[in-house]
Amino acid sequence: MLNGDNVLGKRIPFVLLTNGGGVPEEEKAADISQMLGVEVCADQIVLAHSPMQKLALEYANKHVLVVGGRGRRCADIARRYGFNNVSTPNDVVAWRPSAWPFMDPPSGTQLSRSDGRDYSNHPFQAVMVFHDSFDFGRDLQVVTDVLRSRNATVDGEFANKQSIPLFMSNSDLVFSNDYPRPRFGQGAYHVCLRAMWDALTGGAPLEYTLFGKPNRVQYQYAEKLLDQLILNAVPSTDITQLRTQRRVYAVGDNPAADIAGANGAGWTSILVRTGVFAGGPGANDLANPADMVVDHVMDAVEWIIKSELKHTETDAASKRASRSEPF
Amino acid sequence: MLNGDNVLGKRIPFVLLTNGGGVPEEEKAADISQMLGVEVCADQIVLAHSPMQKLALEYANKHVLVVGGRGRRCADIARRYGFNNVSTPNDVVAWRPSAWPFMDPPSGTQLSRSDGRDYSNHPFQAVMVFHDSFDFGRDLQVVTDVLRSRNATVDGEFANKQSIPLFMSNSDLVFSNDYPRPRFGQGAYHVCLRAMWDALTGGAPLEYTLFGKPNRVQYQYAEKLLDQLILNAVPSTDITQLRTQRRVYAVGDNPAADIAGANGAGWTSILVRTGVFAGGPGANDLANPADMVVDHVMDAVEWIIKSELKHTETDAASKRASRSEPF
Repeated sequence: MLNGDNVLGKRIPFVLLTNGGGVPEEEKAADISQMLGVEVCADQIVLAHSPMQKLALEYANKHVLVVGGRGRRCADIARRYGFNNVSTPNDVVAWRPSAWPFMDPPSGTQLSRSDGRDYSNHPFQAVMVFHDSFDFGRDLQVVTDVLRSRNATVDGEFANKQSIPLFMSNSDLVFSNDYPRPRFGQGAYHVCLRAMWDALTGGAPLEYTLFGKPNRVQYQYAEKLLDQLILNAVPSTDITQLRTQRRVYAVGDNPAADIAGANGAGWTSILVRTGVFAGGPGANDLANPADMVVDHVMDAVEWIIKSELKHTETDAASKRASRSEPF
Repeated sequence: MLNGDNVLGKRIPFVLLTNGGGVPEEEKAADISQMLGVEVCADQIVLAHSPMQKLALEYANKHVLVVGGRGRRCADIARRYGFNNVSTPNDVVAWRPSAWPFMDPPSGTQLSRSDGRDYSNHPFQAVMVFHDSFDFGRDLQVVTDVLRSRNATVDGEFANKQSIPLFMSNSDLVFSNDYPRPRFGQGAYHVCLRAMWDALTGGAPLEYTLFGKPNRVQYQYAEKLLDQLILNAVPSTDITQLRTQRRVYAVGDNPAADIAGANGAGWTSILVRTGVFAGGPGANDLANPADMVVDHVMDAVEWIIKSELKHTETDAASKRASRSEPF
């Protein structure tokens, strides 16, 4: 929001939401800063798994299976988030290579990272999928082993009833990269996990909590970051007033994720034509219509500034009007 | 069959059927010979993918996507079977690493085996899953890309209609190894492939031909090998008479695969208690009852020999009876 009272050195506070992840927020911020030539800080970045930090309150010292991402990166991110007792599917296979024999090079030959635990005696208390799986087969096997087992270990007797909670950070079925056709996103792993769970348990229910756009939790987390940015710049800000009066604008290219989520959060949604949305002039997305459709993110920024200037004039006029009223 | 007329040096001709694979028949034969201390030849081995050799008649020079197995082993097996134009999902990712970015180490850094083709211009004419996938994610992505694309290339426009035939060698959902719980078999990949196909195409039909036990094709192939073993030993054998008169006995531990398939093929089925089947004395499998249930493979062999001796006596008696009849 542009507002004379919330100066912030005339900068509009902003955060960047992505369903990407697998790297710490600091690293993503540095990448984006370099790409855009604008300094972006870690506390302006909302990755798919960023709001999973709040789970660290409950799971700080509980044994958590962290799934997805390259090597041990997501386990490291989880530790930074405050999870102090983290294992990965790779740790399990390093402990007992026969748990997943379909690795090339063979299981056990390159898995030096096991922490020496006997996983038979270390039940898990939650499974958290932080990022895209780098080995669907291994991760489906280990996750279903834990979720099916009576005692939530990797080799416990199968009860075919979900043993512990499952959290997953991003349900996008596909995403776009350099390849001419969309690639599988983390949602593809979810599809396979649900299908394997059904096949193995004969259709037992599987419950899970989703993070990432368009889930509400992602927008609540972003609002907290926005509030903090304003508080950091103007410590005297009345946070209660801020929460009731602020206007948040969302710019995005993906109606099903960006616009659906922004609309659900009560933000003003602006859809750009530079990405997923392929509608022509005058068109809007039918399933998730945006408040405004523009060609480019720059048009969105201009529209936001104009809207805010109108609001500021209206606010000023109503203040003048209320001042002139006798009490 | 034990039969005075089919001497074979008094050896009962036998073949070994397994839903395993991913190695050439020669290698499996050598492994088993060493394990058992009995010489077993490659032409006594029926792996899950062995009967796929017959597809080489049709696909000898057609471009085939061979999926599954360690490294390039299944591509090499396919070439030995007579497929002269084979690529693997790994070749595709080596050609364009962005096709599957979720590899560790990163796609492209360890993929030296691409054959230099431009896969945009090399449509496939069949997909053949030879063995367990060593990278479910990559193999699901590349196989669905090819099957969904209008021209059966890896980066063609999606038509969401199956482009080319799909053959898969083994639909076992799980199998047993050293691990205390059953591990995913190739059937797990099938479950994920069907689920991803559904999710991506909105439920378009997906057709495929299955090999491996308990499919009929596996038993027809085994009968051909048995016939050939007899012909090799006794070249004068009347093959037509052999086919109508032979008795084939199957010994197996898995009712759903071994016994179901043997019953379907008209063989005499014998279930042993040393594996999957866990029924006690007197019990038989309810879904796929065997002709005989015994404790151990040695009991099965004894029972077969006794049965055959009875048959031989009966045959001899009936021959004597027919000889004594006046014409």
